[in-house]
Amino acid sequence: MKDNCIVAQSGGPTVAINASLAGVIDGVKKSNKYTRVYGAVHGIQGVLNDNLMDLSLMALSKFPMVNTLELSPAMYLGSCRYKLPDFKEDSSPYETIFKRFDEYKIAAFFYIGGNDSMDTVSKLNSYAKEIGSDTKIVGIPKTIDNDLLITDHTPGFGSAAKYVASTMLEIAHDTYIYQIPSVVIVEIMGRDAGWLTASASLARTDYSPAPHLIYLPEVAFDEEQFIQDIRNQLNSYRTVIVAVSEGIRDKDGNYISATTAAADKFGHMQLSGTGKALEILVKEKLGIKVRSIELNVLQRCAAHIASRTDINESFALGQAAVKYAAADMTGVMASIKRISNDPYQWCIEPTDVNAVANKAKSVPPEWITKEKNDVTPEMEAYLRPLIIGEVSLQYKNGLPMYLPVEHLL
Amino acid sequence: MKDNCIVAQSGGPTVAINASLAGVIDGVKKSNKYTRVYGAVHGIQGVLNDNLMDLSLMALSKFPMVNTLELSPAMYLGSCRYKLPDFKEDSSPYETIFKRFDEYKIAAFFYIGGNDSMDTVSKLNSYAKEIGSDTKIVGIPKTIDNDLLITDHTPGFGSAAKYVASTMLEIAHDTYIYQIPSVVIVEIMGRDAGWLTASASLARTDYSPAPHLIYLPEVAFDEEQFIQDIRNQLNSYRTVIVAVSEGIRDKDGNYISATTAAADKFGHMQLSGTGKALEILVKEKLGIKVRSIELNVLQRCAAHIASRTDINESFALGQAAVKYAAADMTGVMASIKRISNDPYQWCIEPTDVNAVANKAKSVPPEWITKEKNDVTPEMEAYLRPLIIGEVSLQYKNGLPMYLPVEHLL
Repeated sequence: MKDNCIVAQSGGPTVAINASLAGVIDGVKKSNKYTRVYGAVHGIQGVLNDNLMDLSLMALSKFPMVNTLELSPAMYLGSCRYKLPDFKEDSSPYETIFKRFDEYKIAAFFYIGGNDSMDTVSKLNSYAKEIGSDTKIVGIPKTIDNDLLITDHTPGFGSAAKYVASTMLEIAHDTYIYQIPSVVIVEIMGRDAGWLTASASLARTDYSPAPHLIYLPEVAFDEEQFIQDIRNQLNSYRTVIVAVSEGIRDKDGNYISATTAAADKFGHMQLSGTGKALEILVKEKLGIKVRSIELNVLQRCAAHIASRTDINESFALGQAAVKYAAADMTGVMASIKRISNDPYQWCIEPTDVNAVANKAKSVPPEWITKEKNDVTPEMEAYLRPLIIGEVSLQYKNGLPMYLPVEHLL
Repeated sequence: MKDNCIVAQSGGPTVAINASLAGVIDGVKKSNKYTRVYGAVHGIQGVLNDNLMDLSLMALSKFPMVNTLELSPAMYLGSCRYKLPDFKEDSSPYETIFKRFDEYKIAAFFYIGGNDSMDTVSKLNSYAKEIGSDTKIVGIPKTIDNDLLITDHTPGFGSAAKYVASTMLEIAHDTYIYQIPSVVIVEIMGRDAGWLTASASLARTDYSPAPHLIYLPEVAFDEEQFIQDIRNQLNSYRTVIVAVSEGIRDKDGNYISATTAAADKFGHMQLSGTGKALEILVKEKLGIKVRSIELNVLQRCAAHIASRTDINESFALGQAAVKYAAADMTGVMASIKRISNDPYQWCIEPTDVNAVANKAKSVPPEWITKEKNDVTPEMEAYLRPLIIGEVSLQYKNGLPMYLPVEHLL
């Protein structure tokens, strides 16, 4: 009888993906259905290469270890970027995976990841049906990009949004102290979806209007209009702070980072980030003090300022996935359904993973202002609940205490 | 009778400079010597331009307002970059300043800043002596660079160091998840002094060796040796994480950011930061996955992860400055004297401001390893106590609550 399960993580890191792992471990502990829970190291490749860690002791251990795991950034089990082939063209990796499932008596496989990982869930599920395997395949969402369909939002996004908003407010304080006019451009992750850049709007307070302008990748970016937008803001404000997605493109679909905005004064093309490209453009056109800041990986790894709401939801999604498998569901992803914004209420329900795999959710046009340089109050109402609440990290020697990952080194 | 005082802030922001301001306000409240405490907006220029805020109500208000001020980043009173001329060549600004002191019955002027600000303290003190003014002029140190003489370390540095170390650990977690070899270069502030870059060493834990290499501006940077250092590390580690000061220079004193390291593949010079320049160099020489991260202003404004030790010391220095003035001392700066590392013990004592003004303290050569790519255990023993302890911020709507600065907008 199959009475064990495997959990794995895949894709880019977030600060909440370990909370989902902790939720799976907790769900296993409470299910009475599974004897052992294995972690596959480096995603599905850990299954292929027989690189499994027994996490059962963690399930049995007292609260602190799972609690520390819940609050640790990135992937405790490591990640991979591996796309399964169509099994009708090449079934060999599938044969290895399901042989491993038999060998370890795996009744359920849980995969925590984004839309590429849901492609893996979908394919494994189809193959299981094809060969008549009863191993349940269940997905758990994650991505700071918030670009998965069906689920109201994705684990990891709320914490990244809280980091972006809090950092934006701190950058505003840092900028307001000077008397000379200046422009600050903050480059935010999300190549195709503007959700995380939009979350910069949450930084606004009664006294601080920053960011004054917000540019998302969902609408074409116009350099002339951008310069005019800044000019307009400089009529009202000494300091103009801009939030911009790394993925903005012009009307022909060219990334701004590779356009003439980034050419140096000799006309040579420079390879630079979007923020740096706009910094050069603003300096050239307006001759004003300008600084660009790339939030870089910090927005996906700053676990010390995670959103409590995000961590709680991520944990609950891991628990729910175990319940689905235990109830003989397969080929599903645990999704968040929002019931109301205020008070913020939500529930978890299963979604057919095929509705999620390989698809992406963009910011709806009606949540972008008609000037294309800001988001609407509806966007803020949607985003705000996701950044509420703080985590209580333990610190040791002045550093946040995270679960050691020596097995990844 | 003169019974009021003025406090002002100058130079670059830190997350602890408002703690010193809160300490001054608290000191005034307890001194029974001063009736009103004014804040000069935008440093000494606020005195010149008669732009003063009455902070007396804040001194009299209940704890929370000063507590919120203590934990707010950047300068509540705004900053300036203004250097007083030699009064023997041009006494006009001095005349305006001391006229203002008479007008507002100013018995003491407190200036919170770095070595440029201490130049202002020194000059105002000399002029006061020249004209026989009895207004006391007292300095309070601050700078994330930790490059002031006499004082064991500077307010603001410990919090920046805590941010750098914590962020470095989080970047390490983010990086360890991948299976392919990679190099990550983290660029840290401190153009002439390597203290803050050295604090990246505090990120090391039992399981995490990052940063594997550390380069300070105090020693000449050799590109070939750098590449060899990375090669050596890659023999032992899949992932090599490097902490590098923005101010590293080659043996001829040229900044690395402006050398051929930053030339593109056509040989064109690119204007880029040090981290980006090294990223391009590593990619070219080793053909490995490489990423550069510039911590940028976040390291001086991330008040949400301030060091409690730093905030407490900064507050105490503000209080001490008031005591010095009340005891008729002038031309002094409140300094920290370390008594022991472990247990960490310190006291505050007055220092002649002339010993600090316009001078800078570099990292001593004996605290840099002979390979010039790391710091010694003595450096870590010096740094560690400064990042210990966390602050308890209030949050509202998911954001840290800082004292509003609408008067600066």
